[in-house]
Amino acid sequence: MSASLGPAAVRGFRFAGVAAGIKKAQGAKDLGLIVSDTPAAAAAVFSANKVKAAPVYVTMDRVKSGRLQAVAANSGCANSFTGKAGLKLAKDSCIVVGRELGISPDLVVPSSTGVIGHLFDLGKFSAGVSSAARELRVDGFEDFARSIMTTDTRPKMASAQVRIGGATVTIAGAAKGAGMISPKMATMLAYVVTDAALTPAQLRTGLRIATASSFNAITVDGDMSTNDCVVLMANGAAGNRAPSARELAAFNRALTDVCEILARELVRDGEGATKLVTVNVRGAKNAADAERCARQIANSPLVKTAFFGCDPNVGRILMAAGSSGAAVDSERLVLSIGAVRVASRGALLVDALPAAAAKMREREFDIVLDLRLGAARATILTCDLSYDYVKINAEYTT
Amino acid sequence: MSASLGPAAVRGFRFAGVAAGIKKAQGAKDLGLIVSDTPAAAAAVFSANKVKAAPVYVTMDRVKSGRLQAVAANSGCANSFTGKAGLKLAKDSCIVVGRELGISPDLVVPSSTGVIGHLFDLGKFSAGVSSAARELRVDGFEDFARSIMTTDTRPKMASAQVRIGGATVTIAGAAKGAGMISPKMATMLAYVVTDAALTPAQLRTGLRIATASSFNAITVDGDMSTNDCVVLMANGAAGNRAPSARELAAFNRALTDVCEILARELVRDGEGATKLVTVNVRGAKNAADAERCARQIANSPLVKTAFFGCDPNVGRILMAAGSSGAAVDSERLVLSIGAVRVASRGALLVDALPAAAAKMREREFDIVLDLRLGAARATILTCDLSYDYVKINAEYTT
Repeated sequence: MSASLGPAAVRGFRFAGVAAGIKKAQGAKDLGLIVSDTPAAAAAVFSANKVKAAPVYVTMDRVKSGRLQAVAANSGCANSFTGKAGLKLAKDSCIVVGRELGISPDLVVPSSTGVIGHLFDLGKFSAGVSSAARELRVDGFEDFARSIMTTDTRPKMASAQVRIGGATVTIAGAAKGAGMISPKMATMLAYVVTDAALTPAQLRTGLRIATASSFNAITVDGDMSTNDCVVLMANGAAGNRAPSARELAAFNRALTDVCEILARELVRDGEGATKLVTVNVRGAKNAADAERCARQIANSPLVKTAFFGCDPNVGRILMAAGSSGAAVDSERLVLSIGAVRVASRGALLVDALPAAAAKMREREFDIVLDLRLGAARATILTCDLSYDYVKINAEYTT
Repeated sequence: MSASLGPAAVRGFRFAGVAAGIKKAQGAKDLGLIVSDTPAAAAAVFSANKVKAAPVYVTMDRVKSGRLQAVAANSGCANSFTGKAGLKLAKDSCIVVGRELGISPDLVVPSSTGVIGHLFDLGKFSAGVSSAARELRVDGFEDFARSIMTTDTRPKMASAQVRIGGATVTIAGAAKGAGMISPKMATMLAYVVTDAALTPAQLRTGLRIATASSFNAITVDGDMSTNDCVVLMANGAAGNRAPSARELAAFNRALTDVCEILARELVRDGEGATKLVTVNVRGAKNAADAERCARQIANSPLVKTAFFGCDPNVGRILMAAGSSGAAVDSERLVLSIGAVRVASRGALLVDALPAAAAKMREREFDIVLDLRLGAARATILTCDLSYDYVKINAEYTT
């Protein structure tokens, strides 16, 4: 079956999300737990930002063992640029969680998202962990998803089922995003759990495949967060035998589907976003060209403001393509907006612009730039740049 | 003497700017001429965008000879993405100008800025050239500067004098918008003339030096136009002897000063800009790191919206630095905003933030990020990202 939006129960996992008082807003959920009944195989990918937050360093270190049992995530404080005190806090928070759950702190990974440069209060965190531990439920994924929200306007979950090794396994994921979102493992937290029995090596490969076309193929503002992290845990509660290569491929496809739905939700809920735009570049000379061209278009403030204005502004799109560093021949390329061809082989198709503008008034549309120089292609999801993006980011104070 | 804002007369050059009806707005100046009494040594630099406008191709070709006598610039139409018809129009417009002035069309270069994908009317252009030719004046530089404006709110001129080879030579320049053009694309055009007697090779070197720290060190939105062009002409009317190496260096400094003033004006008048921010990166491991780090900060939408909000958001600046690809060690770096130290060696200096916020409420301020990893440095001028940037670029429709 294919993946779908929304939460799912996954055998052997319980979830909770509570208000611990880390966020300023009274009563806002800001502390979440994911707990497996047994130690799970695990893999993770991280922000490529050279300035990484303390919990990222701790998670990077712990996931090397390939085994995790719990995630403790907080919003309202990123615990980033906090030096040695931040590292100590991240580790201490795992000790608190391990004690509460009766498991080794080495099996617990911390995640933080929020304001950079500050520490959270360990006392509040500890009290929050106690209440979260009491509230752990198999159907608590939505509470968890809410607890990691910052400027997100809604929780983001997706799930899928797939049959491998004689059993049906479930994959469920939650993510948060909104701002500081760009490809290259930017700006987001995502947690995916499955009851499949798989090895850490299998999970690492699957996660690499899944993130390439999901979390690494989206952008809200081209900015890369210090805290980005995707954690995948597989506890084997489904009792499947070792999967065949074909079954493993099916699992990876399902995992990719879940990640793609979550990534799409991140862009759809991008800060101030009113439109979801899929930027397809085809016919590039090589894969690197395709990607840099698609990213440049997807990140251009001029292109994104034109999206917001429903303006089929061919010039800005071609300007971005031409400045990307990719090989571009304006006499050869063909550009379509919402399946309406607006430029072809060196000429703007002026008569087509009203139809393209009409397509752009929809909530979602595609643009396809065929460079006609080769066979490589790339797709990047992006959103528009609106007044609300400026409002959210100019008025969000440290 | 040092360079200053504003126009200057330059011996042997005359200027004009007239309304030719290329812009939609009735009576708006949209055609400008710069004419030297004699053929001048010349050099130029161009957009690195792979999609270049027709007049850019023509100018690139003509300036190879190292000799030019006239510039014919129009606003209201970019003559970009116009294929063979656009190239023919750019060449034909030079024939018109050559005939009107009685000089070879090979000594005339065209420039265009404005709407993409369209051609301008050669009849209107020709009539405009006739009236501009009649209005050529030694003190007509401001008229010329006005004729190339698009979303610019004011004309931009700068001048300097320097003594070389036994004579005082004058350098004067005009430029138009790094802001984006309604509803089309970014275009930066700049023209610098001098009565110095210099060789094309000397001019090329000087222009390369001058643009590195001026037009190539600014950003409004990170987008690169298809029409960008800087043209430098030296007609020798000052009658100086060949300059010494020291005098040539003095000339290049004066030329750089003129270009830096113009570049600063472009950012100050950037679309929607309310603040001019100088981003200094010091202590980088190498020059490439310094530049990419400064550019990433200067182009980050999150950093630019924080500038708009007068928010000393250290986290966003460090996020941008860390994602730039440059070597960054958050435990070593020191960050100052408006000379107020806000982060040092892994710690946010919370008590200093109100003072930094106060500095950010001024029209102009600096940020200095000392990476403390080496000796390389870079400076990029940028502006904030405001509601008006979105308004200007979203509310115009094709």
